[in-house]
Amino acid sequence: MSKGIKIATIGGGSSYTPELIEGFIKRQKELPVRELWLVDVPAGKEKLEIVGNLAKRMVEKAGVDMEIHLTMDREEALKDADFVTTQLRVGQLDARVKDERIPNSHGVVGQETNGPGGMFKAFRTVPVILDICKDMERLCPNAWLINFANPAGMVTEAVLRYSNINRVVGLCNGPIGIEKNIADILGVDHTEIYVEFVGLNHMVFAKTVYKDGEDVTAEVVTKMTEGESGSTLKNINATGWDATFLRTLNMIPIDYLRYYWQTRTQLEDQQAAYEKHGTRAEVVKRVEAELFELYKDVDLAEKPKQLEQRGGAYYSEAACNLINSIYNDKRDIQIVNTRNNGAILDIDPESAIETNCVITRQGPIPLASGHLPVAINGIIQQIKTVERLTVDAAVTGDYDKALLALTVNPLVPSDTDARVLLDELLEAHKEHLPLFFNNK
Amino acid sequence: MSKGIKIATIGGGSSYTPELIEGFIKRQKELPVRELWLVDVPAGKEKLEIVGNLAKRMVEKAGVDMEIHLTMDREEALKDADFVTTQLRVGQLDARVKDERIPNSHGVVGQETNGPGGMFKAFRTVPVILDICKDMERLCPNAWLINFANPAGMVTEAVLRYSNINRVVGLCNGPIGIEKNIADILGVDHTEIYVEFVGLNHMVFAKTVYKDGEDVTAEVVTKMTEGESGSTLKNINATGWDATFLRTLNMIPIDYLRYYWQTRTQLEDQQAAYEKHGTRAEVVKRVEAELFELYKDVDLAEKPKQLEQRGGAYYSEAACNLINSIYNDKRDIQIVNTRNNGAILDIDPESAIETNCVITRQGPIPLASGHLPVAINGIIQQIKTVERLTVDAAVTGDYDKALLALTVNPLVPSDTDARVLLDELLEAHKEHLPLFFNNK
Amino acid sequence: MSKGIKIATIGGGSSYTPELIEGFIKRQKELPVRELWLVDVPAGKEKLEIVGNLAKRMVEKAGVDMEIHLTMDREEALKDADFVTTQLRVGQLDARVKDERIPNSHGVVGQETNGPGGMFKAFRTVPVILDICKDMERLCPNAWLINFANPAGMVTEAVLRYSNINRVVGLCNGPIGIEKNIADILGVDHTEIYVEFVGLNHMVFAKTVYKDGEDVTAEVVTKMTEGESGSTLKNINATGWDATFLRTLNMIPIDYLRYYWQTRTQLEDQQAAYEKHGTRAEVVKRVEAELFELYKDVDLAEKPKQLEQRGGAYYSEAACNLINSIYNDKRDIQIVNTRNNGAILDIDPESAIETNCVITRQGPIPLASGHLPVAINGIIQQIKTVERLTVDAAVTGDYDKALLALTVNPLVPSDTDARVLLDELLEAHKEHLPLFFNNK
Amino acid sequence: MSKGIKIATIGGGSSYTPELIEGFIKRQKELPVRELWLVDVPAGKEKLEIVGNLAKRMVEKAGVDMEIHLTMDREEALKDADFVTTQLRVGQLDARVKDERIPNSHGVVGQETNGPGGMFKAFRTVPVILDICKDMERLCPNAWLINFANPAGMVTEAVLRYSNINRVVGLCNGPIGIEKNIADILGVDHTEIYVEFVGLNHMVFAKTVYKDGEDVTAEVVTKMTEGESGSTLKNINATGWDATFLRTLNMIPIDYLRYYWQTRTQLEDQQAAYEKHGTRAEVVKRVEAELFELYKDVDLAEKPKQLEQRGGAYYSEAACNLINSIYNDKRDIQIVNTRNNGAILDIDPESAIETNCVITRQGPIPLASGHLPVAINGIIQQIKTVERLTVDAAVTGDYDKALLALTVNPLVPSDTDARVLLDELLEAHKEHLPLFFNNK
Repeated sequence: MSKGIKIATIGGGSSYTPELIEGFIKRQKELPVRELWLVDVPAGKEKLEIVGNLAKRMVEKAGVDMEIHLTMDREEALKDADFVTTQLRVGQLDARVKDERIPNSHGVVGQETNGPGGMFKAFRTVPVILDICKDMERLCPNAWLINFANPAGMVTEAVLRYSNINRVVGLCNGPIGIEKNIADILGVDHTEIYVEFVGLNHMVFAKTVYKDGEDVTAEVVTKMTEGESGSTLKNINATGWDATFLRTLNMIPIDYLRYYWQTRTQLEDQQAAYEKHGTRAEVVKRVEAELFELYKDVDLAEKPKQLEQRGGAYYSEAACNLINSIYNDKRDIQIVNTRNNGAILDIDPESAIETNCVITRQGPIPLASGHLPVAINGIIQQIKTVERLTVDAAVTGDYDKALLALTVNPLVPSDTDARVLLDELLEAHKEHLPLFFNNK
Repeated sequence: MSKGIKIATIGGGSSYTPELIEGFIKRQKELPVRELWLVDVPAGKEKLEIVGNLAKRMVEKAGVDMEIHLTMDREEALKDADFVTTQLRVGQLDARVKDERIPNSHGVVGQETNGPGGMFKAFRTVPVILDICKDMERLCPNAWLINFANPAGMVTEAVLRYSNINRVVGLCNGPIGIEKNIADILGVDHTEIYVEFVGLNHMVFAKTVYKDGEDVTAEVVTKMTEGESGSTLKNINATGWDATFLRTLNMIPIDYLRYYWQTRTQLEDQQAAYEKHGTRAEVVKRVEAELFELYKDVDLAEKPKQLEQRGGAYYSEAACNLINSIYNDKRDIQIVNTRNNGAILDIDPESAIETNCVITRQGPIPLASGHLPVAINGIIQQIKTVERLTVDAAVTGDYDKALLALTVNPLVPSDTDARVLLDELLEAHKEHLPLFFNNK
Repeated sequence: MSKGIKIATIGGGSSYTPELIEGFIKRQKELPVRELWLVDVPAGKEKLEIVGNLAKRMVEKAGVDMEIHLTMDREEALKDADFVTTQLRVGQLDARVKDERIPNSHGVVGQETNGPGGMFKAFRTVPVILDICKDMERLCPNAWLINFANPAGMVTEAVLRYSNINRVVGLCNGPIGIEKNIADILGVDHTEIYVEFVGLNHMVFAKTVYKDGEDVTAEVVTKMTEGESGSTLKNINATGWDATFLRTLNMIPIDYLRYYWQTRTQLEDQQAAYEKHGTRAEVVKRVEAELFELYKDVDLAEKPKQLEQRGGAYYSEAACNLINSIYNDKRDIQIVNTRNNGAILDIDPESAIETNCVITRQGPIPLASGHLPVAINGIIQQIKTVERLTVDAAVTGDYDKALLALTVNPLVPSDTDARVLLDELLEAHKEHLPLFFNNK
Repeated sequence: MSKGIKIATIGGGSSYTPELIEGFIKRQKELPVRELWLVDVPAGKEKLEIVGNLAKRMVEKAGVDMEIHLTMDREEALKDADFVTTQLRVGQLDARVKDERIPNSHGVVGQETNGPGGMFKAFRTVPVILDICKDMERLCPNAWLINFANPAGMVTEAVLRYSNINRVVGLCNGPIGIEKNIADILGVDHTEIYVEFVGLNHMVFAKTVYKDGEDVTAEVVTKMTEGESGSTLKNINATGWDATFLRTLNMIPIDYLRYYWQTRTQLEDQQAAYEKHGTRAEVVKRVEAELFELYKDVDLAEKPKQLEQRGGAYYSEAACNLINSIYNDKRDIQIVNTRNNGAILDIDPESAIETNCVITRQGPIPLASGHLPVAINGIIQQIKTVERLTVDAAVTGDYDKALLALTVNPLVPSDTDARVLLDELLEAHKEHLPLFFNNK
């Protein structure tokens, strides 16, 4: 890395890319990114060029010494890279529309990373990521793979179990968001608190909140629930949980828990929203189209404010902080997806978990958190089972394994539904599931 | 036990009691039961007398030296007992009707041992069993508590964690039924096979079937599923699972799994059945009424055949075999609920599990089975979480803990539903939930 | 096995063989051994013929339908065998003399299965056993390997980790001896007690003794120690432990523990004994020579009484009972060496342990015993470390790994001694350590 | 802590105290210690005054706003303290002389924290520390107990298991010394490397060394061993291990491992050293006497250089850095003794371990390190057994438990020796073992 850092970003045509550029620009002094290779597939070429040109304008305006390369040649981009970030979306947003609509049409939660939709996203994404891993072994064996591609938990599990790449970290902006929300509630800066997270990606809990060395979790939870009944914190309170339930749980679950502990109401909300303005993917498609219109403006040379409404708050912060801490051996604490190694006693040491880690130059080291609290052990184990079965199906393209995984998913109402959903989703995503169809 | 065995049966007025009497009569030579004390509460006095008189006629006809005592004085019955069997039903079948109907009325599975109904059965039953344990400490500290009262898993968990009684075994006739079913499918006697069970009460799996030392699980599962498509084994095949799913799972789940992996269809079935002939409890009430009519017949001096249709197949076998093996140190293998002690690596060593045990005079010793298969780990952990939270609520009578337990139960669709169900069920069972109402 | 059982006994020329023959003769009705192949190496040919001819006379006299084959062709013996028993001794007793003398000459315990001697026995034996396993895969893939060859714990560990043979059991007569000793002390038959053993081969403890369902361990230990001070049980009391120590431990250690908890006195005893009549191996050699003289007697057609003094008490019982229980699916409890699978929580589930197992047709299933008592956890873990490092060295023939294993062995006083002992023992056993010398 | 920090130092009369003063003076800006209470017992009054007056002169010279209080009233010192540091030595150096001499006189390692000597130091120290804990509950319930008193591992274990104080950290300067030594060998500053330590106090290993994100352990170990054969690093190489052994181990053991893996040679060294200049304690006594002579010099107002030869290198650094990181929530990584909580999978989560921890305002959080390497698991478990048994004996004053603990200590050659040593050491330390003698 003597001449500066080379980064390859797979899925570089994403609307999120300006976040990343902005993050690198801000950190140039300590994180000298000299080459950023934005890679995409032919189907994404147009977007890649739009966003890539914006990136070039941003870098130029900032007066930063960073080359932006746009390419469809993944190998060229990976060659000697120091970091590989993956933010790809196999099948683009159209695939996500199907992941949401098809389950919904059967009265089942349709979601990007949970339920049958999340599993199909894994079926599409995992083989591509494992392919990238194989390329990395050849082209940049010392590089770090920083994965944002969802479902990030399953992708990390797959890389840990089915690739030779050990330098992998899965990343999500969810925990940072929770931490900042908690800090707001307490009226302090987020560096003044310590939040212990335990769980899996999109299945994580702020287990304990410390301020001045004291456990203030109960205070935080109470304030969150008071918000409901009209306190001044109403704007902060997006928890939407039954107040007594949340206070008894005495932890803060990531919002995705609603799919499991509010299945019925979430499904009703999804169906109502759908009637109104289509699935979430369809909303996002419209937002993205508007964003790309903005990006085309040759006078735009910075990240537009509208991007923040896209949903990727703290994305740049999470990504750049992680890369920065690895590069500079910062040994600060971040919440990432990594090999458990015993940090959570109840989960296989070889599995991926999401928890507080010290980020060193040799990678993240998870902090020991002992046994999971009884109340959340069940659902976390449940999702780990789904993750592992889904990954097994994804890497083999085995129909039967996919059926097993769907059936035991708690969001799938029965084995009969599992089969209907499986068949319909396989057909819908056929083009992006070569393993499933070549195996047949 | 020099003069022979004294047994106290709490809930002695149960329609199942003749099963037990028959079992003891058959085993008189090796299991010399000299005193059987049938205990019940005033509300059950009439039934107690009917069934107790039948018991006396059975013993007399068999020419066996066994005194039958009918009493409402539990202490007298417990005094110096060698075995205490608990088959009580707090609130009788009327309470079960509520456990089924109320959840059903909210579109939720209504069931005796699962979902909100099962939890309320625990709320009613656990405190009574813990009271019996306290009496036992005083009156028969060396006795064994053989518990059949449902939910047997939670009751055993409660005794292990919240009483001083270590000599406790939870018993269910489910595994014997599965084992015999498997033997039928293979066309052999059940002693010719070995079935390894792992899990919890009503959440148990026949994980591996051995015949002649070989693993024949796949053969058994295949035959089970072939039954569906019209083979001659159709009558045996009651599994009702998607064939591909079951073959991929390669284990035989106890039927209760249907509430979790066929939630939607089971709920539809419950609702259809309800329309037709009321809830299961209401059907059972009618069966019981007929049974008690039969029992009244002073010419009847043996177990009537109709009892077998009541649903307690192998109940006598399970109960008497267990008592027999403890008494005679038989060291044979039975499937019971006992302290895990590491037999299943993924579950707290202190928790109750249901698995193969060697039955010795010092009690059951579970056989080590290592880690749970990934596919079933999730649901088993999920139910263990529910069991532990439910027991915590049951022993404290704490409304908030009950709400937490209901909300994380995978059969409860949301926290909102949890609260509605909790409030309605609390009100309905008020009379039998002193801890919940005295605490308020 | 339709026509009856075929057994191949590797190391068939052992003086113990008549024990085995007698055991099979006694059990003919339920254990129809039709062919017994005694296999040995050319160096053991003479002994093989002597003991083999005695075996033939024994079988003939008993009028039993069992063919005795004597051969040096291992493949012929293994072909289609149902059970393979290994009682071989690579390098014969002369090698054992070196295992004892060389350590002793450096002021270190010299012993057949412990310390440097035991490790070298493993270095010689493990590769031979793994060779037999490879043959078995080809010639009798369904056979059971019943290993008596010492060090039985390390050999079992090696087979579990480095062969494809899963049907392996390691056997030792030690636990039966302890159990019978305890029964004698209590004045009952050994079937009237239940003894829970935990640990490793030659590192095992009778953790709890039950009689009539009660824990009577303290009573047993007290009687054992009272024996010291002149009670009538003196003849039984061979424990030789400090009475207070043993009562506080409240377990009965196998005698080999003396090498660890009485190192100094044991070493003194060894040196005194050596002065008097040579090492233990040399004594055994003389005993064996006398035995073989007896065996030659063509009028002898039964096991001579003198064999019992050889040290193999219960050898026949252990071996034949195990084979019998596997063959007949007896499901009784025996203490054998098998894969832990979580039975002892503190030891790797993949490692070999020695504990109570149910013996079924599909093999031994260990009984869960939870955590090891604190007082014995240290030494057991210590020896497991030695076992695993020794096996690693044995299968690779790696000098450095052997040095590591010796150095951390608690019976080796220093790294300097480890090197001296390693070099001297390697040279002494050169002929039987091809892996170590071909690797160089 | 609004007005600044109050620290109570129990054993304040120690010769190490100037180290601590110097550390606080250096860190005044970020660590505003306003009151330092040096506490000692009447027997240490003279030393307390000498060292206390030096402390006052040091503070005055540095122009720092810190009050130094000298007292024999522990309660006064503890009242509202923020940190309590314990560096006490029950029985002073005279007791240590006995801990070394008596075992030596029986041919046994005599050492301050290992073997019988270390156990007796625990017997004397643990009850005093637990007394301090009781006082803390009353007088300063929010304070942190920072314990240096040896044997620090056993003391921490005792506080975790037998007190209500959760805010406890055990501290040792050993790991810092190893880390700095490694950095020297690599020719870099210690902040440029990351060393993962695992184990227990005085039984710890530098398991992996990272530089620039790469595992350089083998390089470090090789350089260490090359030192032996005359490299320029000879002065650094104090490892004294067989080179092949250390390279195969591929970890750096703390020097105390020599008592276990070089028992014979260490014992010889101890005996030779003893002949020459008495036991280590006697040497230290002379050094201390000289130090106190220096301290008396009213012109001395800084830490004298000679103190560094006393053996407490990095003591100040370890102590002040820890207090500083807790106070300022630095979240840096330090190696301390804390509750395992699963960080080392093979050790009870409730036990004390020594490993890398993030130091936060709410205390140290250990980093997950998974399973112990096989080669060191044995000895670490062995010492944990000794620690736990020793603590059990220390808190009860039970002779039998003490005998058990001594007998299973791998440095005690036999149960016979254990009894002799126990009796002789009990008598020698009678005055400081009230629990043992009042219990009798």
